[in-house]
Amino acid sequence: MFKDRKAAWLKKAEALKPVLHRKTVRPVSGIPDHALTENESVVLDFGQHFVGYLTLKLASEGSHPDAPAWLSVKFCENSRELNETLEGYQGWISKSWVQQDQFHVDVLPAELSMPRRYAFRYVKINVLALSSKYRLVLTDALAETVTSADDEKILPLEGDPQDAAIDRVALRTLRSCMQDVFEDGPKRDRRLWLGDLRLQALTNSVTFRNFDLVKRCLYLFACAADQEGRLPACLFTEPRVEGDDTYMFDYSLFYIPTLQQYAEASGDRETMQDLLPIALHQLHLAERQFDPDTHLIRDMDQMGWCFVDWSLMLNKQFCAQAIWIYCAEAALRMKNVPGLARQVAERKAAARTAWYDAERHLFVSGAERQVSRASQVWAVLAGIVEGEEAAACLDAVSACPEAIGMVTPYMMHHYVEALCRIGRKDAAKQVIREYWGGMIRHGADTFWELYNPQNPNESPYGSPVVNSYCHAWSCTPAWFLRGGFPDGNA
Amino acid sequence: MFKDRKAAWLKKAEALKPVLHRKTVRPVSGIPDHALTENESVVLDFGQHFVGYLTLKLASEGSHPDAPAWLSVKFCENSRELNETLEGYQGWISKSWVQQDQFHVDVLPAELSMPRRYAFRYVKINVLALSSKYRLVLTDALAETVTSADDEKILPLEGDPQDAAIDRVALRTLRSCMQDVFEDGPKRDRRLWLGDLRLQALTNSVTFRNFDLVKRCLYLFACAADQEGRLPACLFTEPRVEGDDTYMFDYSLFYIPTLQQYAEASGDRETMQDLLPIALHQLHLAERQFDPDTHLIRDMDQMGWCFVDWSLMLNKQFCAQAIWIYCAEAALRMKNVPGLARQVAERKAAARTAWYDAERHLFVSGAERQVSRASQVWAVLAGIVEGEEAAACLDAVSACPEAIGMVTPYMMHHYVEALCRIGRKDAAKQVIREYWGGMIRHGADTFWELYNPQNPNESPYGSPVVNSYCHAWSCTPAWFLRGGFPDGNA
Repeated sequence: MFKDRKAAWLKKAEALKPVLHRKTVRPVSGIPDHALTENESVVLDFGQHFVGYLTLKLASEGSHPDAPAWLSVKFCENSRELNETLEGYQGWISKSWVQQDQFHVDVLPAELSMPRRYAFRYVKINVLALSSKYRLVLTDALAETVTSADDEKILPLEGDPQDAAIDRVALRTLRSCMQDVFEDGPKRDRRLWLGDLRLQALTNSVTFRNFDLVKRCLYLFACAADQEGRLPACLFTEPRVEGDDTYMFDYSLFYIPTLQQYAEASGDRETMQDLLPIALHQLHLAERQFDPDTHLIRDMDQMGWCFVDWSLMLNKQFCAQAIWIYCAEAALRMKNVPGLARQVAERKAAARTAWYDAERHLFVSGAERQVSRASQVWAVLAGIVEGEEAAACLDAVSACPEAIGMVTPYMMHHYVEALCRIGRKDAAKQVIREYWGGMIRHGADTFWELYNPQNPNESPYGSPVVNSYCHAWSCTPAWFLRGGFPDGNA
Repeated sequence: MFKDRKAAWLKKAEALKPVLHRKTVRPVSGIPDHALTENESVVLDFGQHFVGYLTLKLASEGSHPDAPAWLSVKFCENSRELNETLEGYQGWISKSWVQQDQFHVDVLPAELSMPRRYAFRYVKINVLALSSKYRLVLTDALAETVTSADDEKILPLEGDPQDAAIDRVALRTLRSCMQDVFEDGPKRDRRLWLGDLRLQALTNSVTFRNFDLVKRCLYLFACAADQEGRLPACLFTEPRVEGDDTYMFDYSLFYIPTLQQYAEASGDRETMQDLLPIALHQLHLAERQFDPDTHLIRDMDQMGWCFVDWSLMLNKQFCAQAIWIYCAEAALRMKNVPGLARQVAERKAAARTAWYDAERHLFVSGAERQVSRASQVWAVLAGIVEGEEAAACLDAVSACPEAIGMVTPYMMHHYVEALCRIGRKDAAKQVIREYWGGMIRHGADTFWELYNPQNPNESPYGSPVVNSYCHAWSCTPAWFLRGGFPDGNA
């Protein structure tokens, strides 16, 4: 599918590859005023989160260095990473993501320019070995930062200082993730994910307005479609553009609202027309998941078949149905696809019939009729319930202690969007102040991949050492606070 | 002293900087025929000892790599280093000399070209981390080797195959140490030492005959003299030429026979004349160490004041006197310095009177009248005893169990030289076959810095992990076997 289109799409994507903005920054503290000896360590603080390349200027004190200086250098997005170690790490995400490297400096003085890109606010330098004849002097440290976000496009948010702080952190999160593509996180996975792209593109549309980068990413995904035209959950751009072999029901479909929102915000109808066929094709591919008699989606056991939230306990059957409806409605805003409006209506009705517990005002999901916050949120966002009834669902789940809760800022975004949708903008703002504000109260300079207010050290990976503390899907407060949420519809 | 000469000397030294011979070599074994997983390791064997730069060609198998590959790479001169670790290393030489580095490879396939120069026969690659989605494929490994030795200058040694093997290993030792300067060892210290230079220059004169490199090193030492004109024991060439702040009585004096032997072997009398003043100045500086009444040298407590051998127990008073005589005689071969011949005769006689135990045929040293192999060897080399009496000294010390023995191939060289001096060339050859041949029987591809036949793992540094297994001062068997030792005098 679309095989004959890919060369042209790739050309468009590559032509849109951004020239990164580069700026040299220095630590605000941590450069020691004394020479270092073996086993000593220092922590440089760059004051805020950056993505870039570090150079250390090193000299020596004492005799002429008669042995190499051996250093370990660890880059931390968050101060809590400074004291974490890899000893005993058994998590299922590769520990190769931990940003630590070792260097031997054979000749001093030296400019140690590290070749890899890192994401960091803090840099911990540990002197693993010198000789007894000299000490190491750190004369300067400078980072060349990179981003495709243009700070000049942004004015500070006026008004409440707490909201302004949240907005600043959200913008910094998005800025650090904006590189050659919209990355999910500049520490990890440094990769273009469709679910993240959708939220980044939303936020970008009211902040940095780098529409070329969104357009580039939409074309990259089109190039990365598999043989049957299915869009992968994420893609790689190095050494060449290639889709990952991970597919998620919801992520493939989210290409549709991403394209629709891009076209609406940028006014670029040409790209919309160019990519509409592959977008609509995702709806077509989703069909095999539905039972044509009941209009209901089939559930799957496979972990991650549909993402929704970073939760292994969550049953995703209902959410998948709702997300299909949500995306089909986005498609209808781009094109009046014959029969689609009717199909949406059928599937809305079927979902309600099968899974709405009208007495409890709760949508349930799966054979075990699980109650979750996610199901109520997606029922609202898909318009399966509206008005008073929608509000009742969200209230009911708040009062339901056994309901499966939310894990990620990504899911929290959808909760906030649902609150807006039912007109509770103050409540939405309150959630932002409590949840995203909570990260700031825990020292966040950028918003995290994961945040559980009850356990800020939680990690789904086995250890927070591989957590990403600057994660794209957490940047949406800037979208809300800057009025990105339109009255009526997202 | 010599301040006004140094700019010209430095210019000469830099003009003689060699263009290194470069050759690409590949491992003879160890490239695995399967893809590697996390925690797996491989050992590449390059077949013999090389100095150079490694490139690994890496690819992947399985899904597109979704996390960096994290590798540790350890370079070993000797197979026993493969299993040594730095855990618990407490030696007094910096562990930064151990040739191990870590690399994160962010994109695969990759050519991982390592920027540092290493000395190695074996390369151990350990996969510290991948992700579960892919495996690492080592498709190729190649080393660009460097040396300033020209192999085309050398014909294989004819005759006894055991001697030919010793000669080959000696040549490889010298070849690996011949870089921008004559290094003591290409793993450690990678530096120009005067004591090593003397033996390298000797061996070079009958093998690679790179006289320009000797000349360059002689000029570099002249540039590195301190304010009073004293030559340091070693010098650094990076970031600029600078003498170490280590001075040794014997090493400074050895500049004289090094210059004399260079001039004789190369015929370059111009350089000899140019550098003769600074050479003779070392004799002048040594004067303060002598008692003008007794003509005897004063002993010192300070460790390393005079090197002689890598032994903390050895008393060096007698050897220092003998080495002064040896070097003064080399000076006299270059110039008839007024009064010097008489001084040499006085100091020979005084040494004999003070320290020769005629009954036991043994020279003693220091207040405690210590007997050592080194004292007898230097008595012979300085001509303090000659003929039958000299032979009797060497025999007597062999029969003296409490005599302090020899530790290094450097001291063993002088013992072999002493045996030749008294006409026992067969015995000299026997020592070479037993001692240097013993290293080969322990798997040496190059001769080691240290070798104790009773304990091949011995290290003066606290652990063999920092030992150098390719050390310049061990290369002299090629000098003996190729007839470098002249009948009568060295």
